[in-house]
Amino acid sequence: MADPILIRKDAASVAHLTLNNPGALNALSEEMITELTAELERISEDGTIRAVIISGAGKVFCAGHDLKQMTAARQSEDGGKSYFQDLFARCARMMTLITQMPQPVIAQVHGIATAAGCQLVASCDMAVAASGTRFGVNGVNIGLFCSTPMVALSRNIPRKQAFEMLTTGAFISADRAAELGLINRVVPHEDLETETLTLANTVASKLGNAVKIGKSAFYDQFSMDLQDAYAFTGDVMAENMMFQDTEEGINAFIEKRAPNWDQS
Amino acid sequence: MADPILIRKDAASVAHLTLNNPGALNALSEEMITELTAELERISEDGTIRAVIISGAGKVFCAGHDLKQMTAARQSEDGGKSYFQDLFARCARMMTLITQMPQPVIAQVHGIATAAGCQLVASCDMAVAASGTRFGVNGVNIGLFCSTPMVALSRNIPRKQAFEMLTTGAFISADRAAELGLINRVVPHEDLETETLTLANTVASKLGNAVKIGKSAFYDQFSMDLQDAYAFTGDVMAENMMFQDTEEGINAFIEKRAPNWDQS
Amino acid sequence: MADPILIRKDAASVAHLTLNNPGALNALSEEMITELTAELERISEDGTIRAVIISGAGKVFCAGHDLKQMTAARQSEDGGKSYFQDLFARCARMMTLITQMPQPVIAQVHGIATAAGCQLVASCDMAVAASGTRFGVNGVNIGLFCSTPMVALSRNIPRKQAFEMLTTGAFISADRAAELGLINRVVPHEDLETETLTLANTVASKLGNAVKIGKSAFYDQFSMDLQDAYAFTGDVMAENMMFQDTEEGINAFIEKRAPNWDQS
Repeated sequence: MADPILIRKDAASVAHLTLNNPGALNALSEEMITELTAELERISEDGTIRAVIISGAGKVFCAGHDLKQMTAARQSEDGGKSYFQDLFARCARMMTLITQMPQPVIAQVHGIATAAGCQLVASCDMAVAASGTRFGVNGVNIGLFCSTPMVALSRNIPRKQAFEMLTTGAFISADRAAELGLINRVVPHEDLETETLTLANTVASKLGNAVKIGKSAFYDQFSMDLQDAYAFTGDVMAENMMFQDTEEGINAFIEKRAPNWDQS
Repeated sequence: MADPILIRKDAASVAHLTLNNPGALNALSEEMITELTAELERISEDGTIRAVIISGAGKVFCAGHDLKQMTAARQSEDGGKSYFQDLFARCARMMTLITQMPQPVIAQVHGIATAAGCQLVASCDMAVAASGTRFGVNGVNIGLFCSTPMVALSRNIPRKQAFEMLTTGAFISADRAAELGLINRVVPHEDLETETLTLANTVASKLGNAVKIGKSAFYDQFSMDLQDAYAFTGDVMAENMMFQDTEEGINAFIEKRAPNWDQS
Repeated sequence: MADPILIRKDAASVAHLTLNNPGALNALSEEMITELTAELERISEDGTIRAVIISGAGKVFCAGHDLKQMTAARQSEDGGKSYFQDLFARCARMMTLITQMPQPVIAQVHGIATAAGCQLVASCDMAVAASGTRFGVNGVNIGLFCSTPMVALSRNIPRKQAFEMLTTGAFISADRAAELGLINRVVPHEDLETETLTLANTVASKLGNAVKIGKSAFYDQFSMDLQDAYAFTGDVMAENMMFQDTEEGINAFIEKRAPNWDQS
């Protein structure tokens, strides 16, 4: 039996997903997108999971779409157009799902993250990278502008720096990625797993229901003007105040003790 | 008689407001929100004031909402929900007023600025902080996600860095806050007052009517697409050109002399 | 015969435009706006040009609008208002054209870039500056708030830092401009021309049709929410996949050889 292309291992309330197709540089093939989407949907429904890590097996995090598979699709009657439309739509649904699911999702990045692999990093709520990791949206080098990765990238880093990456195809270092806002921090390669897990455990130690409504509001309020954003988030906070665990959290804070929360 | 919880002192055309409830870490209680809103409204109508400073008395700038007061509100029939909705709405109106009033508002920050206190910094047009100041949106630690502070914070700093602060509750240093864009600069603690006043005086030395229409346009144009933003600001500039003081300012520049403006 | 106020020199597929009115610090006069707009429109239609550089002759890049010309317009019956409205509208059309034309446009900046000159830098897709260059939106110093430059500036750099530049009129250094995202990089003055040309040549070496649809999508997707942005860019990528040169580019990549593209 073949190795699964996606591995899930849970440690307490953290789910750790590993893209496991190192021979193909963990390409986001049809199968990988299907598996990753399904697993993220399962986690979305699982109230015991409060943080998610996505990493890649082998030498790199993820090198983007599977170009051989895409090329094979050109054989169909329409030259592959409807296949490509469907592929990009399914990939976009997966990237969007990361922002819509209740749990924070952290990319644990090493080696390279290119094209849709870089989009995956940008789409995660947070990202930690090993020193030496390189990031690029380099599709332009082969005549395929990284238009969908650009959506996530341009919501992470400043405009001119995103434009340069997209039109030159140049790689940036992990340090530069941290400087620009694409990732949260750079750590020595040997510390990557523990540092990412520490961040995940920190987030997982918070009240899951508060993080859930907060994360959802985070992405929803960006496109609103100030008044609408405040009307919306004011309601979110009032709702949050009504959680029994939040009442306990505030009481515990006032009484200078640890909260006694229901969550496992 | 009790000390006032908000002190206003004017120096020439700069109004300096001090949150003055150090025993409660200058919490944004009902009373503080009411007083600060009223004072900002008065200043809005005062054409002789051309810049505003907001600082905090005692050891910290502001530690956010008054949790004891909020907890007391749970006694009402609806468990406090309508109280909370009203409180967050009034707080949001105050934060929004800062961006809507004609004068630039500068936060003078020291000690800590947490939760709604960090939101107050983010809502000000500019901010100067003493070295050693720490910033956080740490409500998540007690189960209350900082959803309203997030609105202002996420319009100041990059997305992943805002997400990390909101979901980990971790503090960031003043240097990091400057790096991310949350504040304009860090100065030694002993220089905080003079450096902030220097910035305020610089802004106050400009033509008040030009700053007024410019500040208003600044916030209005963000949500517009490029064409709409240019149509709007082009009209603003044409209107600005018709000010008599602007004509004098341009003439003075061409004639290499200081402008002779009407403003006091 | 007078020197032309705009010089165009092409080198292979890169068009190099030079603002050539050094005596007026390359002011964006009526004539300069007319000439630059016309040349950019010609280049837009020219499929052999794949990158554009804009630089300034003499000691500075560009010092903004022509204040003497604007002052002369005050003699008309309406005090110049309709003239100003038209001027700002035509200037905005030029700035917008830079983002709408198919080729990436790079500002090659030295000396100073102030007011509408700073707007020109911000409006270009990328910018390279010589060490020692200073940037400012300093109209506020003469009572004319830089409301139209603000549109481009505030889409390049963080909010509080833009506000400070606009209301203090203070200059920032090239290093600070790079840090904030206003420019892509700073180079020694003697390397400015070659470094900018290298960047332009890199972009020009890519498949022009891919860069064209990518650049167009880049600016269009900013104002969309995530779902709309992905629906839109997914279609763009599917369309891009159907280019014959892209098929060749991908095949060449899979076969580990250089692509054989149609473009000259």
